[in-house]
Amino acid sequence: MASRRTSILEAAARVIARRGVRGLRVEELAAEAGVSTALIYYHFKDRTGILRQTLEFINDRAGSYTTERDPAAPPLTPREELEHTLLLELQGGDQVRENSTAWGELRASAVFEDALREDLARATLVWVQEVAELLGRVEPMAPATALAGAAERLTALLEGVSMRWLSGSLRLNHARALMTEAIEVELERLAR
Amino acid sequence: MASRRTSILEAAARVIARRGVRGLRVEELAAEAGVSTALIYYHFKDRTGILRQTLEFINDRAGSYTTERDPAAPPLTPREELEHTLLLELQGGDQVRENSTAWGELRASAVFEDALREDLARATLVWVQEVAELLGRVEPMAPATALAGAAERLTALLEGVSMRWLSGSLRLNHARALMTEAIEVELERLAR
Repeated sequence: MASRRTSILEAAARVIARRGVRGLRVEELAAEAGVSTALIYYHFKDRTGILRQTLEFINDRAGSYTTERDPAAPPLTPREELEHTLLLELQGGDQVRENSTAWGELRASAVFEDALREDLARATLVWVQEVAELLGRVEPMAPATALAGAAERLTALLEGVSMRWLSGSLRLNHARALMTEAIEVELERLAR
Repeated sequence: MASRRTSILEAAARVIARRGVRGLRVEELAAEAGVSTALIYYHFKDRTGILRQTLEFINDRAGSYTTERDPAAPPLTPREELEHTLLLELQGGDQVRENSTAWGELRASAVFEDALREDLARATLVWVQEVAELLGRVEPMAPATALAGAAERLTALLEGVSMRWLSGSLRLNHARALMTEAIEVELERLAR
């Protein structure tokens, strides 16, 4: 049953990335996943349940592709790991693009619907803390509040840059260059 | 007739801020503006025409509230003007919130619909150039490419921070503090 549940979540991420949260109908999701609507209600209770679990799913998936590396490669320095983590969200591959699109769309839909707000705030906090921890490994003497502020800015910038990329206002290479420089700017500030 | 057109655009911004671009139906817009659907088609041709003109309208309106100041107040320094411009997009008033919501929603909808992409890219470019110009007045010796990069990051960060605020992941005061510090970080970098 676990794999059925995963198939439904994969289908939900695809549908959201293709047509938006507001285009997500349970009937369409059932057709996309090749299951009955009854099975979807069994696993997720209602539309809000689907959205909340999909948010968690795309978050976990982002975590997995941001940490996937050749096991034979030498370990990354803390700085490389930081860049790796933040830049892997900006890539041309279909899955990254789908994940970024779905994340941005869940964020945008929360402006209008309350259902996802708490889950989104919690996921954002966890993400900020992860990036703050990576920044602290590069600059161990920086105070915790400075690390937290830099992490909030870098992750919020990534969301803003990602939306510009996905909406056609920014090319991918340029989006990556802006992020790389932002990391440098924030690290310089933390090193002072 | 000009005021009728403006009333329709004001109504369109309200409807988009309340229900999203994808919730905008011409019939509902007509009811909100208190005009006939025929008048809307007369002025805007079709739904895409409405969206494009509304994008321009909320852009112009942001320009007006970001520059409104007491005429008796002493002139702002370039640094103050920069902060003023970027922070006035993050305010609790209804009109600013409505404008920010509508802008974010037009940006988010462009991920799924091509119609607005060119207009959005152009509006983004104009905004980046304005901020680069303000940065250049604070740091006249900074090279143009450095000013442009800083302006792109500050405006993209503002979009990201604004979405977090509007979706309930960030409080307004904290959003403003993050932007203020981002301006400082970028200016320090430009001063080196």
